[in-house]
Parts: sequence; structure tokens; C-alpha cells
Amino acid sequence: MSTYALIMAGGAGTRLWPLSRQRSPKQALRLVGERTMFQHSVDRVAELLPPERIFVATGAEQVAVLAEQAPELPFGNFIVEPSGRGTAPCIGLGALHLRRKDPAAVMAVVTADHYIQDAARFRQALAAAQQVAQAGHLVTLGITPSAPATGYGYIEQGEPLATVDGFPVFRVDRFTEKPDLDTAIRMVESGRYSWNSGMFIWRVDRIMEEFERQMPGFARQLAQIDAALGGADAQATLERIWSQVSKQTIDYGVMEHARDVAVIPVDIGWSDVGSWASVAELWPADGDGNVVNGPHIGVDTRDTLVFGGQRLIATIGVEGLIIVDTGDALLVCQRGREQEVREIVNRLKTEGRQEYL
Amino acid sequence: MSTYALIMAGGAGTRLWPLSRQRSPKQALRLVGERTMFQHSVDRVAELLPPERIFVATGAEQVAVLAEQAPELPFGNFIVEPSGRGTAPCIGLGALHLRRKDPAAVMAVVTADHYIQDAARFRQALAAAQQVAQAGHLVTLGITPSAPATGYGYIEQGEPLATVDGFPVFRVDRFTEKPDLDTAIRMVESGRYSWNSGMFIWRVDRIMEEFERQMPGFARQLAQIDAALGGADAQATLERIWSQVSKQTIDYGVMEHARDVAVIPVDIGWSDVGSWASVAELWPADGDGNVVNGPHIGVDTRDTLVFGGQRLIATIGVEGLIIVDTGDALLVCQRGREQEVREIVNRLKTEGRQEYL
Repeated sequence: MSTYALIMAGGAGTRLWPLSRQRSPKQALRLVGERTMFQHSVDRVAELLPPERIFVATGAEQVAVLAEQAPELPFGNFIVEPSGRGTAPCIGLGALHLRRKDPAAVMAVVTADHYIQDAARFRQALAAAQQVAQAGHLVTLGITPSAPATGYGYIEQGEPLATVDGFPVFRVDRFTEKPDLDTAIRMVESGRYSWNSGMFIWRVDRIMEEFERQMPGFARQLAQIDAALGGADAQATLERIWSQVSKQTIDYGVMEHARDVAVIPVDIGWSDVGSWASVAELWPADGDGNVVNGPHIGVDTRDTLVFGGQRLIATIGVEGLIIVDTGDALLVCQRGREQEVREIVNRLKTEGRQEYL
Repeated sequence: MSTYALIMAGGAGTRLWPLSRQRSPKQALRLVGERTMFQHSVDRVAELLPPERIFVATGAEQVAVLAEQAPELPFGNFIVEPSGRGTAPCIGLGALHLRRKDPAAVMAVVTADHYIQDAARFRQALAAAQQVAQAGHLVTLGITPSAPATGYGYIEQGEPLATVDGFPVFRVDRFTEKPDLDTAIRMVESGRYSWNSGMFIWRVDRIMEEFERQMPGFARQLAQIDAALGGADAQATLERIWSQVSKQTIDYGVMEHARDVAVIPVDIGWSDVGSWASVAELWPADGDGNVVNGPHIGVDTRDTLVFGGQRLIATIGVEGLIIVDTGDALLVCQRGREQEVREIVNRLKTEGRQEYL
């Protein structure tokens, strides 16, 4: 029984505009150090798994860029979704490929657009989760909350199931949607909740069983794709079926009502890198609270993120700004307003300014 | 008796960094409309004077750029100072050239790095000043103050001398240095002071007489240059003598103790364009107080100057910023701190980063 990774690398990440674009989505960016987010995610599992057991699910627009960034992976391990249909179909398609390769596979679903500072601890947790998954559980890695965040779903832990390699494992009582702040505070204070990181470990037969039970229509579509795979009309069948697949997340579609769901709460320095503010948190700040990437001269500058490149950026008398400089576009944003980067992207879409998307 | 203009165009204008550079000084920049500051200054006098009577004093580094911007001027009318020695030597060298051309010339000294919104009124004032100058006065155009500015010298008017074409003309009682704020407030309230704009109109024989009386050493140096002019060693003589010329301003060197100095206070929408804040004042603001030059998308953006070019600049939740975007450098500065742009330039000098100067 071998473990395989499925790196989900299909997202767009418009919240990191102007750096993230359709052709250079978040996972393809160098946001921490010299490696891209995608490369970090490959590196994280590559110490546990040989390249031939690392699979990547992504879109047609991105596959070339990602394959170039991970030349050590067999190109056949890149599973191309004809279009984005949410995490449930993405995982289903990945599971299909893994089952054909190894019906007894354990499948670790990991993300390409999150960052994990303590990669060693992540790998230990993954190894523990693998053992729990082998026993038939659908395991999710829950992130121990560092704050009452309202931007994530939460997982409520129930009875303890075991302790594996020092990691306590709990039955999952409930997946909850993004809470309001009061609810988030109560949940974090209770100590019984962790963030839903979107990382899952299970046997491929178990997740297929859940698709058949909870998403029977999608399971039939998968079976049609499966029947065509390896044949001459595999791609045509995939494209035809895929266009009829409904959008669904793995949380709503499967996890909320799945059997034998377990959570392993982990403290691994996880970040969803969901905004420029979270990018700033991943870099060391100087004595004035500034995080600087690229040439910069600051006069009386505080708590400012300067994310540039070749051009010199000079700042005078500014505080709490986010400055992101790219070849063709520049963002200057007050901290705390970084979620509104989406508004810029939406406006560009409305105005049809494709060159900036 | 004909009038000639001498446009002083030798300044650097480091306060408009990163747009102003050694090779593209303030007067060569398009800060208002499609014409450069220098072109505006040529345009202003070109409706009064034929091109052959418009002279330009500048430095060797800048003459090519400026000549290209004013191809209608005879290239021989560009007087090249071997190095910057302040306004007194600059004007002396210009006067020398004009005297050789026309000993009875009236000389209007105007600046290339200031902006005048009411150019028609400026020309009327110049025409009036010309008449006063013909009578032997050294005339200065005083700017009617719009605020108690502490960044300019002030001219105190004495007894009325005449009214010419509707312009009252006063004897000058005193040139004063840059005042502190309390003094500036008192001066502006008195109604007897105007700003020293650095624009002068006089007969060339009268200013030469003052150089001989007040700056006799420099007058002798001028005579040596004059003696060599037109000969084979004219340039070598100029360079040799010029390296010995002391730096001096026309205000200290001549005007403060000159005879028969007159002032014509004028209200012509004058701006010294001495900082990015004054550039912002020259452009129309939108309903949120933003002044925008170049592609921009703003979300909740107020009182901000966006001075860009080709690149898209997006701003979110910012107020009172100055954003200046050039090909190789970017400035983000809080309004009210724009004088500190000099600090950036000084730091670049100290660090020897010549490419940004």
C-alpha cells in the first residue's frame, strides 16, 4: 500500500494582483524565497514520496508553466482539468487516475497555493495521517487556529480516536462554514476547533465510495471518463463529460456527510497567503516593521510592504501601505484594505482590460 | 531699441525626482500639458519676440535636449555655461552676448522652470516692464502673494513711480531673504510685498554698469571673455575664466544694492513648480481631490497625485499620497513631506547610485 500526493494547483489567486495573473497564478509566483508556491508544495512532499507518486491537478492554461517549474515530475502525472469545477470534481478526477495506477493507493490531497513554514512537522503529520487513512478513515489536517479568523471554515473535533506518532487524532463532529467574529472567538477559545486547510488523506477506494454514495451522478460521470481512459477518444470523452459536471466543493459535496472522518490538528506555520497582508507576514520585517523585497530607499517609512523587483522604490513619510510593483502595473493599498484588490480585478474584467488580468 | 529674452534654463530640479534627473532636468519635463516647461517658457515670449531675439542660457549637459525641444530657435542663441555659477554669472554672460548683438538691447531675464498660467497677462506685464526698463530702471516682476510662503524671497515696494499700461510700478525699497512664517504673514497682510520671481527686465548697458560697480572682479572676467569672443580661442578662454568665476546670485550680487530698481507686482498664476505638491496644483483635480496623469484605477482614493505614464496604477484606501512612476524608479510620498524628496536624491548621491540621478 503506497501513498500518492495529489497537488491541487488550479487556482487563480486574484487577491494577489497585480503579481498574480491568469497566466501567472498564485501558485506559480515566488512569494517566499526563490521557489514558487507550487515548487514549495512539491518540495514538501518530495522528501516523503518519489516523483512518480506525485500528481498535479491543474488547468490547461497553467500546465506548461507548472511542468516547467517541476521538471523532476513525469509529465504524465499532470492531470489537466478541461475547466475548473471546484475541488470535488478535481479530487474525483485525481482519484480516478490514482486508482488506475494503484487500487490500494493512499491519496494525500495537498494545496499548491498555501505556505507551510514548518515543512518537517507537516511531513510528520502526513506520515501519521497515512496510518489513520489506511484504517479506512477520511483524514483531514486541521490547522490549530492562531486567531479567530472569519475567512476559513472550521472543523469541530469529537471523541479522541487515537494518538499516532504523538499526533492526537479525533473523530470529526462537524464541518462549519466561515463563522462571524463572535462565533469564531467562541470556537477558538473552546480549543475544539481547527481551520479547514483543504488537505486530506484517505484511501482512494474510500473516497470513491463516498463519491458513489453522496455524489452518484458525478460518480457515473467519472466511470464514463474511466472507461474511455487509455483509448483513442479519452480526451474527447473527458471534455464532453466534464462540460456537464456540476461545480462542487469537497467540503459540501463529500466531507460534511462522509463516514469515518477524522481530524489531526496540526501546528505547522500554515498560511493561505490569501492577501498581500499574509504575504507580508511570511517575510522578516525590519526594525520599522517594513517588509521589503527589491531595491528600496525609505525615509520615515513604517509597517509597509514593498514588494518590487528591478525598479527602485522610494517611500517618504508613509505608514501601513502595501506597494506591489510589476512590469506593467502598480498597486498602492492601505493595509486592512487588501481584500479590495478583488474590486480592482473585477473592474478590469468589466472594462475588458484583458492585458492586466 | 529692441527687446531680447534670456531664458535661464540651467537648473537641475532634484525636488521632482524620480522624474527629474541630471539628463532630464525639470525644465525638460512635461509637467503641464504636452509641452515641456522649457517649451512653455519659449512659447510665452515667442508671441512677443522673433526667434532670433530669444536666447537660452544652459549647461553643456542639457543644451542638446533643449535645442531639440525648441528647433525654431537659432542654435547660436544657446549660450552654454561651462558650469553652473549661479544666476549672476549666468545673466552676465547672457548680457555680454546681447550687448555684442545690440548695445541698445533691452534684456528680459525669464526662467524656464516656473509655470505661468496667465501667459497673456505675463506678456502685457513684460511689455509694460520694457517701457520702464527703457527709462533706465532695473525692473523686476514681483508676484502678488497668494499665501504667506516661506520658501521665496520677498520684494518690498516703496514709492509709486508710474502706471504703465495699467500696471502700477513702484520703486523697490528692499529685497528680503526667505522669511519665517510670522514675518511672511505680516508682509503679505501689509500688501506692500511681492515674491521675487527671478524675472528681470533692464537695458543691457544698465545691468553691465551694475556688474562693473558691484561685482568689478566678475566684470573684468566678463571683459576677458568678451575680448576672446569670435576668436579661435573663445571657448578655451571662456572655460579658463569661468573656472575662476565665483558663485553668486543676482539678488545678492546686484539687485539688493542696485540703483533705480523698480517692481511691477503681477498676478499671473505663477508657480515655481518646486515640488510634487505644486505640480498637483497645476492639474485639475477630480471630485475626490485626485490629480491623475496616466492610467489609474482608484478605490476610495482621495487627495492623491498619481503621476504615471504607461503602466496601470491602482490605489485602494489611500489619502494624501504622491505617487510618481517612471521607467526605472517609483516614489510614494505622503503629502506635506514632498520636500524630503531631496533626502532620497542625497542618499542616492552618497551611495553612488548614479543611474538614478
